[in-house]
Amino acid sequence: MPELAYVNGKISSIETAMVPVEDRGYQFGDAVYEVIVSYNGHLFALEEHLDRLERSMGGLQFPHISRETIHSSIHDFFKRAGLLRAAVYMQISRGVGPRSHGFPETRELQVVMTVREVDEKPVKHRAEGTAAITMKDFRWGRCDIKTVQLLPNVMAKQKATESGADDAIFVGDGDVVREATSSNVFIVVDGTIVTHPLTQNILPGITRAVVIDICNDLSIPLEERFYFLNDLYSADEVFMTGTITEVLPVVMIDGNSISDGKVGPISKQLYGALQEKINNL
Amino acid sequence: MPELAYVNGKISSIETAMVPVEDRGYQFGDAVYEVIVSYNGHLFALEEHLDRLERSMGGLQFPHISRETIHSSIHDFFKRAGLLRAAVYMQISRGVGPRSHGFPETRELQVVMTVREVDEKPVKHRAEGTAAITMKDFRWGRCDIKTVQLLPNVMAKQKATESGADDAIFVGDGDVVREATSSNVFIVVDGTIVTHPLTQNILPGITRAVVIDICNDLSIPLEERFYFLNDLYSADEVFMTGTITEVLPVVMIDGNSISDGKVGPISKQLYGALQEKINNL
Repeated sequence: MPELAYVNGKISSIETAMVPVEDRGYQFGDAVYEVIVSYNGHLFALEEHLDRLERSMGGLQFPHISRETIHSSIHDFFKRAGLLRAAVYMQISRGVGPRSHGFPETRELQVVMTVREVDEKPVKHRAEGTAAITMKDFRWGRCDIKTVQLLPNVMAKQKATESGADDAIFVGDGDVVREATSSNVFIVVDGTIVTHPLTQNILPGITRAVVIDICNDLSIPLEERFYFLNDLYSADEVFMTGTITEVLPVVMIDGNSISDGKVGPISKQLYGALQEKINNL
Repeated sequence: MPELAYVNGKISSIETAMVPVEDRGYQFGDAVYEVIVSYNGHLFALEEHLDRLERSMGGLQFPHISRETIHSSIHDFFKRAGLLRAAVYMQISRGVGPRSHGFPETRELQVVMTVREVDEKPVKHRAEGTAAITMKDFRWGRCDIKTVQLLPNVMAKQKATESGADDAIFVGDGDVVREATSSNVFIVVDGTIVTHPLTQNILPGITRAVVIDICNDLSIPLEERFYFLNDLYSADEVFMTGTITEVLPVVMIDGNSISDGKVGPISKQLYGALQEKINNL
């Protein structure tokens, strides 16, 4: 059984897995989530994902659920699927109750998971780089909490696709470059890597943190600071990071080549270093 | 059978009505909705709600669904419940498909409804007015589209409750007063009513439009223009409008009384005029 779903402990096929219509995740987007992938049968950065999940639930004042419960649920579910290269999607919502904006009386969270093969990035994207468009950031003000408030991301991703690009990069007031629809964004300027600092406007990416660690290990200078649309256009390299994105070069933005339009050396080096970490799992 | 649910034509109790875990409404908030109420067995402003629903679906580039289909679905479902004073909740999502941000291959929308007795505003609130807090508007940039991106509204409403108030009013950059968590906001200044113009930052409320019509009929001067936090605090009257809210006075904001802290004459007059319209249904 490769592809499975889990709803509060009950395992089924994904197609037959159901949630109540008055699940608050459905009517209010009142839910948090994580996507955790495995390599060769080992979940990558599981503890870091669980740390973030706990922060997300805390940010929304969810009732407490023990880390051990979540950890063993994910682990057992992943093992049951028996996939070497799996994407485990976990969504936890505030529960089920008659529709009303304020928190419901129930303190029973809904825990839903799916597991399936990873939908890999195209080989061509990794080898030759990707194209992105930029777009005014019209998301809500708490993008640091990993919730299912994802409609702007959906709309931006779709617009990118319809524009012949692969992803969209959100740009905030004052032309501050934030992040992509499901990845953080980094630029390279004169050998220094720059990425948006952790604020309420971007997701604290797990792979973002791994890449920062790698840069420290390799003594590649890195600055977490605001940078702007002009910096993005004129960068020597641009790349994105994310759980499935890993380290993915961007060689064209809004129809303009980044540098010479080829994948740069630092993007390659960091992708290689990440693969090495993965191989040592 | 007073309280019912509807999922793509299948009618059941609300508790047993289910949607797939990969419904995009659940994983992305990729869904629009309406709440329509009846008085004495007659749905109020149904066509106006359907107009807005069509605009919302257009704004999200949903596949077409005929107005006749939606109209007859709502009407038949409402009749079946047999409630005189019903709230029909209708949510339409982009459909079901393996989780991926861009639009899915399926063009089959999911149509979900619930119907139950209206959860009326407390009599005391109508008679003596309500209390509100203000809060920085941290919602996304397309609040004119009635989607389930409602988590900030949930958080704001909950904060209001925890502060001993009844609702929260969102205030945007430059202290522009937007609207409440599920109602539009109006102020009265020297006999003139002022409310936020229709932009991407507020919902084009059905009751908002009805109240504007009433003001025109009664020759009460009304301006749709930006107004600010100071105007709100110093207003002669403040009231909210909405489908269940109707016309609801606000007599305290952020702990300060509005004018003398009593329900004002224009709020009373407009509530009365709305009731008259309702009685003539």
